[in-house]
Amino acid sequence: MEESFVPFRGIKNDLQGRLAFYKKDWTGGFSAGLSILAPTTYIFFASAIPVISFGEQLERETDGALTAVQTLASTAVCGIIHSIIGGQPLLILGVAEPTVIMYTFMFNFANSRHELGSKLFLAWTSWVCVWTALLLFLLSVLGACSIINRFTRLAGELFGLLIAMLFMQQAIKGLIDEFRIPEREDPNAVEFQLSWRFANGMFALVLSFGLLLTALKSRKARSWRYGSGWVRGFLADYGVPLMVLVWTGLSYIPTGTAPAGIPRRLFSPNPWSAGAYKNWTVIKVLPTNSYTTSEMLDVPVLYIVGAFIPATMIAVLYYFDHSVASQLAQQKEFNLRKPPSFHYDLLLLGFMVILCGLLGIPPANGVIPQSPMHTRTLATLKHQGLKELKDSPLQMAARLGSFNAPVDTTVFDIEKEIDNLLPVEVKEQRLSNLLQAVMVGLCIGAMPLIKKIPTSVLWGYFAFMAIESLPGNQFWERILLLFTAPSRRYKVLEDYHATFLETVPFKTIAMFTLFQAGYLLVCFGITWIPIAGVLFPLMIMLLVPVRQYMLPQFFKGAHLQDLDAAEYEEIPAMPFNSTTDIEMLSRGASFADDGEMLDGIFTRSRGEIKRACSGPILASEELRTVESPLVADRGGNVTRFRGDLSPRQASKGPFTSKPSHLGKTG
Amino acid sequence: MEESFVPFRGIKNDLQGRLAFYKKDWTGGFSAGLSILAPTTYIFFASAIPVISFGEQLERETDGALTAVQTLASTAVCGIIHSIIGGQPLLILGVAEPTVIMYTFMFNFANSRHELGSKLFLAWTSWVCVWTALLLFLLSVLGACSIINRFTRLAGELFGLLIAMLFMQQAIKGLIDEFRIPEREDPNAVEFQLSWRFANGMFALVLSFGLLLTALKSRKARSWRYGSGWVRGFLADYGVPLMVLVWTGLSYIPTGTAPAGIPRRLFSPNPWSAGAYKNWTVIKVLPTNSYTTSEMLDVPVLYIVGAFIPATMIAVLYYFDHSVASQLAQQKEFNLRKPPSFHYDLLLLGFMVILCGLLGIPPANGVIPQSPMHTRTLATLKHQGLKELKDSPLQMAARLGSFNAPVDTTVFDIEKEIDNLLPVEVKEQRLSNLLQAVMVGLCIGAMPLIKKIPTSVLWGYFAFMAIESLPGNQFWERILLLFTAPSRRYKVLEDYHATFLETVPFKTIAMFTLFQAGYLLVCFGITWIPIAGVLFPLMIMLLVPVRQYMLPQFFKGAHLQDLDAAEYEEIPAMPFNSTTDIEMLSRGASFADDGEMLDGIFTRSRGEIKRACSGPILASEELRTVESPLVADRGGNVTRFRGDLSPRQASKGPFTSKPSHLGKTG
Repeated sequence: MEESFVPFRGIKNDLQGRLAFYKKDWTGGFSAGLSILAPTTYIFFASAIPVISFGEQLERETDGALTAVQTLASTAVCGIIHSIIGGQPLLILGVAEPTVIMYTFMFNFANSRHELGSKLFLAWTSWVCVWTALLLFLLSVLGACSIINRFTRLAGELFGLLIAMLFMQQAIKGLIDEFRIPEREDPNAVEFQLSWRFANGMFALVLSFGLLLTALKSRKARSWRYGSGWVRGFLADYGVPLMVLVWTGLSYIPTGTAPAGIPRRLFSPNPWSAGAYKNWTVIKVLPTNSYTTSEMLDVPVLYIVGAFIPATMIAVLYYFDHSVASQLAQQKEFNLRKPPSFHYDLLLLGFMVILCGLLGIPPANGVIPQSPMHTRTLATLKHQGLKELKDSPLQMAARLGSFNAPVDTTVFDIEKEIDNLLPVEVKEQRLSNLLQAVMVGLCIGAMPLIKKIPTSVLWGYFAFMAIESLPGNQFWERILLLFTAPSRRYKVLEDYHATFLETVPFKTIAMFTLFQAGYLLVCFGITWIPIAGVLFPLMIMLLVPVRQYMLPQFFKGAHLQDLDAAEYEEIPAMPFNSTTDIEMLSRGASFADDGEMLDGIFTRSRGEIKRACSGPILASEELRTVESPLVADRGGNVTRFRGDLSPRQASKGPFTSKPSHLGKTG
Repeated sequence: MEESFVPFRGIKNDLQGRLAFYKKDWTGGFSAGLSILAPTTYIFFASAIPVISFGEQLERETDGALTAVQTLASTAVCGIIHSIIGGQPLLILGVAEPTVIMYTFMFNFANSRHELGSKLFLAWTSWVCVWTALLLFLLSVLGACSIINRFTRLAGELFGLLIAMLFMQQAIKGLIDEFRIPEREDPNAVEFQLSWRFANGMFALVLSFGLLLTALKSRKARSWRYGSGWVRGFLADYGVPLMVLVWTGLSYIPTGTAPAGIPRRLFSPNPWSAGAYKNWTVIKVLPTNSYTTSEMLDVPVLYIVGAFIPATMIAVLYYFDHSVASQLAQQKEFNLRKPPSFHYDLLLLGFMVILCGLLGIPPANGVIPQSPMHTRTLATLKHQGLKELKDSPLQMAARLGSFNAPVDTTVFDIEKEIDNLLPVEVKEQRLSNLLQAVMVGLCIGAMPLIKKIPTSVLWGYFAFMAIESLPGNQFWERILLLFTAPSRRYKVLEDYHATFLETVPFKTIAMFTLFQAGYLLVCFGITWIPIAGVLFPLMIMLLVPVRQYMLPQFFKGAHLQDLDAAEYEEIPAMPFNSTTDIEMLSRGASFADDGEMLDGIFTRSRGEIKRACSGPILASEELRTVESPLVADRGGNVTRFRGDLSPRQASKGPFTSKPSHLGKTG
């Protein structure tokens, strides 16, 4: 995307580009038939569980004004709208952690002002949403998405770690609360007696750690030794919702022994209960039109104007999150053939924000990791290359080669194998997005079931989200590096593709990381400030000038480039067809390993995408200098070196194109 | 050891051999100075924690007749005696799980007979001990230790897995009991109310899983990336006792909230309390000589004779355990220079069994993994090779080589480095054994502190012992192999040195493993039979003829050899000095990696000792055929292949000498 600020040009281009494919977006979806259900279900679970968790978090923070019903409703409504009239249908929308944080600040603020109080909280947020939408319109019209890359990896990864810290904080806070008497409950109930509270807290520890550990394990199922490939794939893809189910089931074992309230479960009104909609502002319009208008107009003018302040923060967050999620869903590796739609999608987001504001529900925006996940699940290798290669002699050779035993029996036909190794193809369509959004909507009807989930399982899930967001975040890897014994720093190179380790002196890496960590702590500290905390996104914005003007005074340009590489600073990727046969071979072999590789390439976070594919990629000129990492010996046998190549070499490989310099989850 | 059955010859040889070194055994210990304290402390913890755990298990099973005080006393007394007048001072003695199981059977039997009852239980076990000792004398005199190898890997590993199952069973049983009202306690106490019992059970789950997971993690500290080498080494060596301490500390957090009995803690009388010695048979001799004699003579003649039956079982177990522990402590890899002493040690064990019987405490015998651990902690590379090599260029080269980057800056002097690479030297002396036994004895005085350990921490420790005993047990690896996807079986070869995978058809492996697993389940089932369960060691003995006469009718001889290799069937080890320079180099380099390698070589279990050292060892003739796994390239740089060699080649390496075909913990 070239930088261009001619008003409306971005939106016009987006609309033109996408309209040409609009019919195909639907026909392609329907022609895929039932096979569309697998990615749909996968994204549905990946989307619904965090949204439910955020709902529970909001319920705590807003004294029940907002619950999982509202977060699910927003995710469903925005998802359906976006999948039908949105630009880029690969983008998944949902209520995310930044929204929850901002709504928490706004609730605390409203609650502390007697002019507003919790009664006018949602009416006031409607005004915030109106302002936010206006700002989003402005950004979209002016073509702001073309400069999203100004937020470098520095900002993206710092924001990612901040979100991880907030997740972890919620997990810990939630667990501590399990030992306490909840507000708005009868403290004399049996389950709040000291002994049962203690029992509940201990049970919560068991359930949350149980969920956390089993979810983390199941995510790695694809590389397990045991079970068939199908079972391993299923566990890796659906292990997390499965574990939520399993631990919810296990939480019912003490039924009969413990009183009904133990363990504590999700709190949310059934959407069809009497009074459940009393705070759904717009819905109240229907019977008594004048009343609703008056509720929004009940907000004093000063606060209507003041709503502009949180609105700027939310607008910045949404601009950033929505664009980056869209960008990650459209990485070059996916070989997409339909155009992006950054500006039009931001414009549409503005309308959806107003809608949500009027409905009295928190808005949804483009989410990570679900958006790139969505594209990945729709990706296949052309010509079924994946399937055919699975048990090919080539695959066997690569496998055996990986523990360096000479392969005596394998002979393969290079020409034939290469034919199978065409790049990734993504089923670009609107159906999977629409269906997953509808399924999220159906969850509202399934609230009686969802309410069976113990809250402690959700706290475990928060910890899981925090930990899952770390790998691939270079900032995190550098923090770990500071604690790594000097003699073992080479292992970082082994595990993780870290160019900077070779090119930047350790002292500089340490200084840069300490600066970033200090900055992170300041950001985290700001979120603790009662009302001014709402300004924390300012700190993320501030990183753009800090990176551009301040850091170059303390660090060498070359070092900064290596520590904070942005797309335009990268060595261009080699065109696919210029790579050598052997390179293709080794690449193909990795691709075919039960999808482990495919899984790794398109990493979920805004981390270093190169990481997963640094192993087997090598341009031909390096082949001779590195003592033949993959050589077919006299007998046609393949003996392959194991481990990573020197990163510099790997970074010239065909897979290194887009550096996602941004990293976060939520 | 050649097979010889001339009476007393074995004992005579042992005595002659060891007497010549007796003075040196002490002077060598004292001359080592304070450096002897590190291995002493290490073995003390490795010995004391299981002994305390077994004490708690016995306390449950014998209604408090035997507790941790008795198991600690036995371990201390036998350890002191053995360290002073024993033959092989590297052998560590302790009360082990088979003893606990046998005493449990005997208690249940005695309890069920009104002629004995719990009152005469210990008197009756005195008779069992007398018979056991006589059988041990007989075995020792007749030279039975020379045929210990008839118990092949099949028997050893099956026994090892049986013990692991019993550990796990105890862990689960203990945890379930945490939810129940303990026998012999006041069911009306506050802490046994339903809510507090539930709380206690949940707390127990937290503590036991906490201990299990952190202990398992800390055992792997040596390969962590973080922290200095010293911290990592300390955590790997002392992490488990440290974790017992940490979780005991954490168990005090709810003090003030929960009543005093939560969590439940170790139950044992203080040794100085009134009445604590009422069932110490021999000690009672002192004041009223006639009474004790009468207690042993109170046992009806029928039961005195009948005591012979459990005695045979215990004798078999001790013969087997004591000899194998001694054998593992003296593996060829350790390059010991003082002679073994199998027969004399078995004779001495007989005397100690009688002594323990008369004292009314369960006897101790040679224990695994502590015995080989003891030797390992006393082992160093000659000439301080380890220390000097740590940061040598050679070491760096090997490290860098392991991820295949060309090493541009390193040049090293092969001649000089080889000089440092002399084999392992073990400080063979009696002092460390004596001191650790004395320290175990001092634990009895520290009972008020030890009693602060929550029982749930000990259940976690049982689970830890079970899991820790599995790696290296080929039988276990084969069970896992049955659940491994066919396409991933090659990973077993990668992770684990499994010759049989290349030489034996999978179907045969599966049949052999299913037979062994079925046999194991029968053994485990037998331990559940109330009184006849005492005969379970018969099933282990029976494996000798089963292996020798029955199995060859179902399996090919060559396959059996690969699946159940015994010492005499192995390819002889190459003498050390015939290996090539490059081989020495690679070996030295591995040795020097912060002791990780040294740690791995002398595996704790009776599993496949070759496993850990199969990587870098290679005889020179293979060097050229396998595409140079370790080659110094033109510039004198080393590029090394990573991963295992073909197992057949590795098995000719210098480290493959003694196959410990026996595997268990306890």
